[in-house]
Amino acid sequence: MASNNASPELLIVMGAGATPDQTEHVVARLQEAGADARVSRGREATVIGAIGARDTLASLPLEGYPGVDRVLPILKPYKLVARELAPDPTVIEVHGRRIGDGYFGLVAGPCTVEYREQTLETARAVADAGATMLRGGAFKPRTSPYTFQGLGLDALEVLREAREETGLPIVTELLDPRHVEEVLEVADVVQIGARNMQNFLLLAEVGRIDKPVLLKRGPSASVEELLMAAEYVAKEGNERIILCERGIKTFERSLRYTLDLGSVAVLKEETHLPVIVDPSHAAGRRALVLPLARAAAAVGADGIIVEAHPRPEEALCDGPQQIPADEFGAFAREVADLAALMGKQIG
Amino acid sequence: MASNNASPELLIVMGAGATPDQTEHVVARLQEAGADARVSRGREATVIGAIGARDTLASLPLEGYPGVDRVLPILKPYKLVARELAPDPTVIEVHGRRIGDGYFGLVAGPCTVEYREQTLETARAVADAGATMLRGGAFKPRTSPYTFQGLGLDALEVLREAREETGLPIVTELLDPRHVEEVLEVADVVQIGARNMQNFLLLAEVGRIDKPVLLKRGPSASVEELLMAAEYVAKEGNERIILCERGIKTFERSLRYTLDLGSVAVLKEETHLPVIVDPSHAAGRRALVLPLARAAAAVGADGIIVEAHPRPEEALCDGPQQIPADEFGAFAREVADLAALMGKQIG
Amino acid sequence: MASNNASPELLIVMGAGATPDQTEHVVARLQEAGADARVSRGREATVIGAIGARDTLASLPLEGYPGVDRVLPILKPYKLVARELAPDPTVIEVHGRRIGDGYFGLVAGPCTVEYREQTLETARAVADAGATMLRGGAFKPRTSPYTFQGLGLDALEVLREAREETGLPIVTELLDPRHVEEVLEVADVVQIGARNMQNFLLLAEVGRIDKPVLLKRGPSASVEELLMAAEYVAKEGNERIILCERGIKTFERSLRYTLDLGSVAVLKEETHLPVIVDPSHAAGRRALVLPLARAAAAVGADGIIVEAHPRPEEALCDGPQQIPADEFGAFAREVADLAALMGKQIG
Amino acid sequence: MASNNASPELLIVMGAGATPDQTEHVVARLQEAGADARVSRGREATVIGAIGARDTLASLPLEGYPGVDRVLPILKPYKLVARELAPDPTVIEVHGRRIGDGYFGLVAGPCTVEYREQTLETARAVADAGATMLRGGAFKPRTSPYTFQGLGLDALEVLREAREETGLPIVTELLDPRHVEEVLEVADVVQIGARNMQNFLLLAEVGRIDKPVLLKRGPSASVEELLMAAEYVAKEGNERIILCERGIKTFERSLRYTLDLGSVAVLKEETHLPVIVDPSHAAGRRALVLPLARAAAAVGADGIIVEAHPRPEEALCDGPQQIPADEFGAFAREVADLAALMGKQIG
Repeated sequence: MASNNASPELLIVMGAGATPDQTEHVVARLQEAGADARVSRGREATVIGAIGARDTLASLPLEGYPGVDRVLPILKPYKLVARELAPDPTVIEVHGRRIGDGYFGLVAGPCTVEYREQTLETARAVADAGATMLRGGAFKPRTSPYTFQGLGLDALEVLREAREETGLPIVTELLDPRHVEEVLEVADVVQIGARNMQNFLLLAEVGRIDKPVLLKRGPSASVEELLMAAEYVAKEGNERIILCERGIKTFERSLRYTLDLGSVAVLKEETHLPVIVDPSHAAGRRALVLPLARAAAAVGADGIIVEAHPRPEEALCDGPQQIPADEFGAFAREVADLAALMGKQIG
Repeated sequence: MASNNASPELLIVMGAGATPDQTEHVVARLQEAGADARVSRGREATVIGAIGARDTLASLPLEGYPGVDRVLPILKPYKLVARELAPDPTVIEVHGRRIGDGYFGLVAGPCTVEYREQTLETARAVADAGATMLRGGAFKPRTSPYTFQGLGLDALEVLREAREETGLPIVTELLDPRHVEEVLEVADVVQIGARNMQNFLLLAEVGRIDKPVLLKRGPSASVEELLMAAEYVAKEGNERIILCERGIKTFERSLRYTLDLGSVAVLKEETHLPVIVDPSHAAGRRALVLPLARAAAAVGADGIIVEAHPRPEEALCDGPQQIPADEFGAFAREVADLAALMGKQIG
Repeated sequence: MASNNASPELLIVMGAGATPDQTEHVVARLQEAGADARVSRGREATVIGAIGARDTLASLPLEGYPGVDRVLPILKPYKLVARELAPDPTVIEVHGRRIGDGYFGLVAGPCTVEYREQTLETARAVADAGATMLRGGAFKPRTSPYTFQGLGLDALEVLREAREETGLPIVTELLDPRHVEEVLEVADVVQIGARNMQNFLLLAEVGRIDKPVLLKRGPSASVEELLMAAEYVAKEGNERIILCERGIKTFERSLRYTLDLGSVAVLKEETHLPVIVDPSHAAGRRALVLPLARAAAAVGADGIIVEAHPRPEEALCDGPQQIPADEFGAFAREVADLAALMGKQIG
Repeated sequence: MASNNASPELLIVMGAGATPDQTEHVVARLQEAGADARVSRGREATVIGAIGARDTLASLPLEGYPGVDRVLPILKPYKLVARELAPDPTVIEVHGRRIGDGYFGLVAGPCTVEYREQTLETARAVADAGATMLRGGAFKPRTSPYTFQGLGLDALEVLREAREETGLPIVTELLDPRHVEEVLEVADVVQIGARNMQNFLLLAEVGRIDKPVLLKRGPSASVEELLMAAEYVAKEGNERIILCERGIKTFERSLRYTLDLGSVAVLKEETHLPVIVDPSHAAGRRALVLPLARAAAAVGADGIIVEAHPRPEEALCDGPQQIPADEFGAFAREVADLAALMGKQIG
């Protein structure tokens, strides 16, 4: 129980020539002292994160152990997701699709599953155009109780069918801790929406599952709060987390949200997790989605997640910002060109 | 099911001389047409809110019915909580304590239930000083997974004991839809915290309970979003809602949050629900709690909710902003003086 | 030149029993060492602010001088306006009217001088109702170049006439450093508007005049930036500054600006200068001006500045927020009652 | 005088086959009626902006004149800078350097002119690396009166020397309306800083000069306010305006400002003026300048303005965000690659 609330307090960096045995030895000493150890083997160095009471750890002569190069305290409030802990960027792989490091994710699909044909038609179009995953909401959190809230469990069936037909992994949102089982049967990546970024119960739930989590930044959450939310997930054991910037609330009203692309650059410094961008919600209008998507690729994002629809003018939700399915190919090529210039391939 | 998603579309204002029979007649006609009707009898007029498909309603010759003075569409996105629907302000009564209209609520207690004596000692002090309800957190949503998260179910036991000893109704937060039953056994008023203001599942849950709800404004929620969140609760049938302003996130950093007292004045215009203010979280420091509490009373709030602790310097959570229990009496007197000037008595 | 850029680095607090001679002795030693000294004699203690190079000051054995109780560094970036430097609150007196400490200022008048009768009529009404100063804009900074920009120099004549008739001191804005002379001929208090809060040239100009300055907080300026702007004025020699909170820009749109009353409480801690509140611009609507004015008095402000007009519906500028001149008396009484409860009399 | 406050109310779009004579005829009719006319000949159509009283204009049978295709009202509050008025994007040319349409401006130089060698060394380095203009502050508006405020007129001399040596046009800020003459002797482009974006007197001054103006968005100004500020300049006759996004103030603190790149995309829709981005101030740290500069190019900006210094660690102002002069070449190449992908050449 005690270790449950503990965070990694120390990083033990093994020297370039350290042997696996030496690493094992450090881990064993830590465990004898009641601490936990997480070993990350990077391209250039092996790093051990030591988790436990700070004073216990301080009493161990860690710097004197064979192979140890340096011992560093972790000063940031986030630990497991901190870049310091993982020398290499994390790559999330789902059914052969990859996001992170050299791989740029192109997640597309309808805002909401409205009916079978709308979703399948969109899925085919984005699959043909090179999308790497299919997004689609089954449950929609809406500001007004009088607007369409999503098809719920029926939508999950449609998404399963879309995956079968296109092979695209499914990204869909989990809203209710009581729906974990049903959502997991279909979702390949479980989304935590912006409004739930600090729903700590939901974060803990997805921290215990065996699928990647797409965690959207809340519209008024700081970068640090986003990283702490990811830490809630990681602390429960699930470190396969994709962060997503989707715009923040400011005084400016010419767009729906202010897309905070600077935060993407900061996140790339602060964490080893991949970071993608949702340009659709901030744009609010189709014509602005492409420039924002390009800017996302240029600032260093590891992918984008966008909305598409066969006939946006009929969409039940956020029609004006959805890309017509038959224009998605041209859109995807523009984004891929920019990703290529940044040294990334569509994952 | 259809009417479940419908919102009141029309207000039917009965003339000053309308008889109860005439009102019944209008209600009966509405029901025959498949619409729902909510009757509010105010001091000066009786108002019927008609809920149903707009075109069905439009086909009824409502203005011609005997006793009907005017028929008005509801233009605001919120309906049940709109001031238009209820000619008189709502008063929430709990075990003889009242909030709203002429009654000023003085809700006080520890940020978190830390241990039995801390809570009981605080409860006694605030009860003696004239507090009208006791607040105390059992479950604490915290930004970091490595900080104290509340005692959980054990805390509820302590709160029950505090109520037995002091007679004060208990205000405590519901975080998890799976905890409804346990929390309801102890809570007299169920709090929905700022971070959950748009957790629509939780709002629906408390919309179906038979106890008042204290709904805190999210730190980046607009006034309209707060009213829409209240509408989620009301739509399920529970209209005993207390709104709470607790500070919004802005660029200013000299206080933890910018207490938006102007929004209290706006809310008093827009809704019939009582509105209270939490000055503690915005202040972040004890010395600022009193001036902000006074300003809340002066701007027209129906009460305040503040944090107190027997020994703030030992508090596990938000110590610097908690009022020492033995200074609470002086604090309460200052606030009561201001409430009196505003024509309100401590409820 | 060096001392021109220097800020007070040390506070020398003389003991309760220190004699004037002892104070003089410390000042003389500071001056010999090339430092400047500002002496503030408060109710309880005399404080000397020493201005000069930090290392020179450090070399003086100040703590050993007779009568010296303590020597403290000033850590805040603002110095002359810091509360630390002046043990007692500053009271600004203009033609017998006072703002600060126990005196509550009631500054009222039209947003803009539109024509002679509108201004005189308003001036008479607010004078009769107990206003302590008359406000009125001659030059109006407007977002659009196509809207009314004020009558300019002609307006100053009208204001002079209003003062002659009512005896109220005139508060009017200086926009252009080239207008200093003309504006000073009429203004008794020179206003620096919110948009010019960081117009450092203008601040320096009013720092060299011999009249009080009313400095409005910019709508996105932090409390610290406001204090630094005041420091620009004080540094040039004019320490008769009244600060004014008038609302900040946030995501919330139900009012025009979010009135940041918490910042008033912070300012009262941080500075010895008086702080007033302009509720009109934040409210944007007449009905909200009174609750915000009350809240300002309750949070500890030293006064308010509000807009009034004989016929608001005809106003060329900000009509909806102006109080009808014939309702100003009732308004003023409500505010005066609250100020009285706070221990203040209308100045 | 009346027309001085008028804004273009109508756009008269001449048909594809309209002759110059037909255009002249419309202009003559407008002038006879007391209205002004501005003719813009674009690639695809000729557009006449008619300026005058709306009712006078309405009385003219404009749609019946030969060659007229359509007559449209201008609904936006900004008129002269609106995209509607100018069918083609504006290109600003200064001594052979161009910004706008297909030309990407690369403006670089020190934050402030500190001394001769620092500025000349930086100027040489950025000129060699392909910068198209040299920036450098002579007068620095600073939050604190106790920090370095720039060398003033002496700095202008150094900038003149830098231009002579490198041939780069000079971009420098005008702070004080009383300095217009001196600044114009050296500046090729006159900058209005972010803090002065709503200093309407300064805007009017530069509206009457014969050199391009670089207008920076205020940190809390909306896109519409920026366009209205540009309208102030244009209304006086100077339509050679470059807009500059440099970051807005929000709750987020991981960067100094939130660079609002979405607003660049909006501005490109709303105005014919070129829009550049200053990534240095938002970044606050060197490592973030390149990703933000790339994102600016990708979102469609017409250029960037960045800070460089021979030895940033010694800079008197904003050292951490300045690019070392000897790294500027690599930086410029990365940005040029992105601009090229967007179809733009370095101007």
